[in-house]
Amino acid sequence: MKAVVLASGGLDSAVTAAVAKKDGCALYFLTVSYGQRHQIEVERACEVARALGAADHVVLELDLRRFGGSALTGADAVPKDRKQADRAKGIPATYVPARNTIFLSLALAYAEVLDAPYIYFGANVLDYSGYPDCRPDFIRAFEAVARLGTKAGVEGRMITIRAPLLYLSKAEIIRTGVSLKVPFHLTHSCYDPVPPGLACGRCDSCQIRREGFRQAGVADPVQYAIG
Amino acid sequence: MKAVVLASGGLDSAVTAAVAKKDGCALYFLTVSYGQRHQIEVERACEVARALGAADHVVLELDLRRFGGSALTGADAVPKDRKQADRAKGIPATYVPARNTIFLSLALAYAEVLDAPYIYFGANVLDYSGYPDCRPDFIRAFEAVARLGTKAGVEGRMITIRAPLLYLSKAEIIRTGVSLKVPFHLTHSCYDPVPPGLACGRCDSCQIRREGFRQAGVADPVQYAIG
Repeated sequence: MKAVVLASGGLDSAVTAAVAKKDGCALYFLTVSYGQRHQIEVERACEVARALGAADHVVLELDLRRFGGSALTGADAVPKDRKQADRAKGIPATYVPARNTIFLSLALAYAEVLDAPYIYFGANVLDYSGYPDCRPDFIRAFEAVARLGTKAGVEGRMITIRAPLLYLSKAEIIRTGVSLKVPFHLTHSCYDPVPPGLACGRCDSCQIRREGFRQAGVADPVQYAIG
Repeated sequence: MKAVVLASGGLDSAVTAAVAKKDGCALYFLTVSYGQRHQIEVERACEVARALGAADHVVLELDLRRFGGSALTGADAVPKDRKQADRAKGIPATYVPARNTIFLSLALAYAEVLDAPYIYFGANVLDYSGYPDCRPDFIRAFEAVARLGTKAGVEGRMITIRAPLLYLSKAEIIRTGVSLKVPFHLTHSCYDPVPPGLACGRCDSCQIRREGFRQAGVADPVQYAIG
């Protein structure tokens, strides 16, 4: 049974891939190189794919900087040292317009070509409540598009989106990853890494990751610029 | 008022853009260079954008050949000389997996960055009934994704898909184009053009176009390899 796995090089998508493997799927990784600030994310996705024994890995070039509009693709500064209460407010500056809609549509094309019934997607509503395209309603709406807009859907071969981390806390995601032997040392979470290869420890993503490891009682193998 | 126009270089998208202009919109063309067999489509989209006075034109490179799976991106032969009854049956070999879902998701990102309320999309249910991603239900489903999966949607700035050609026959599309002075000579429809720059006249797209011009009583400025 084939599954397309949207892989960013981050912790959540690595745990998602490990869940797909545990579910008995052959893993077809899909990574979009969309002009994110840091090419390291794409490199790490490749290493995670190898570590988990992916059947294939497509890395697509798609320069979303052509549209502009997000801290993750260049123009604006990445917010630092925000308190949890502030992180939970509104939609972050790191929101990339329609990113997950684009990623899921590409995963849909790949799944249809492979005749894969599943797309595994590491969306999570708790830590990233500000991102509209991580919510369950969005995922269900996208499944309707998949059913109506593909040959597979018209012919009754449904392509389902599995988001196994959707309702988990970061600590629960990390514990799941530990139980599935996810190579956490290969994953990259920082929005603004400091040379030479350190995570900043201060952006929203670093803070959420560190709190998660702390709460899970697990050592984070990533090196941070601040203690 | 801004509108993103999905522009393929073909006749339908040129008429769609002209309708958007008539509707009072500033035109922001978006063309995806997705590995279609013929680069001429992208060149024609650029010429149509210039002819209609587009405010901007983004041409995105996205190599869908990485996924495979369609006559339009390389592997299989383009069907020729099919009768209307056969063309109407099932899903054509020229179906590209999830293509319009991908194109609309990219248009959605562009519209969100521009703060454009409209995406103009040249889908049509009559001549291309076989393509699942040209149907009204698909378009409505995608609008739900746009509403739920973007910052704009969450904040109440709806992005609407306008498909002004949806229920028109090819002859009606051509008459609309005539009334709006669409530069038909710049548009390209052939799935399998013959050097030096002639349309084949035999693929589904050429046949539909020629019948449309005939029914509309309008001369087609395109040169065909067969009479």
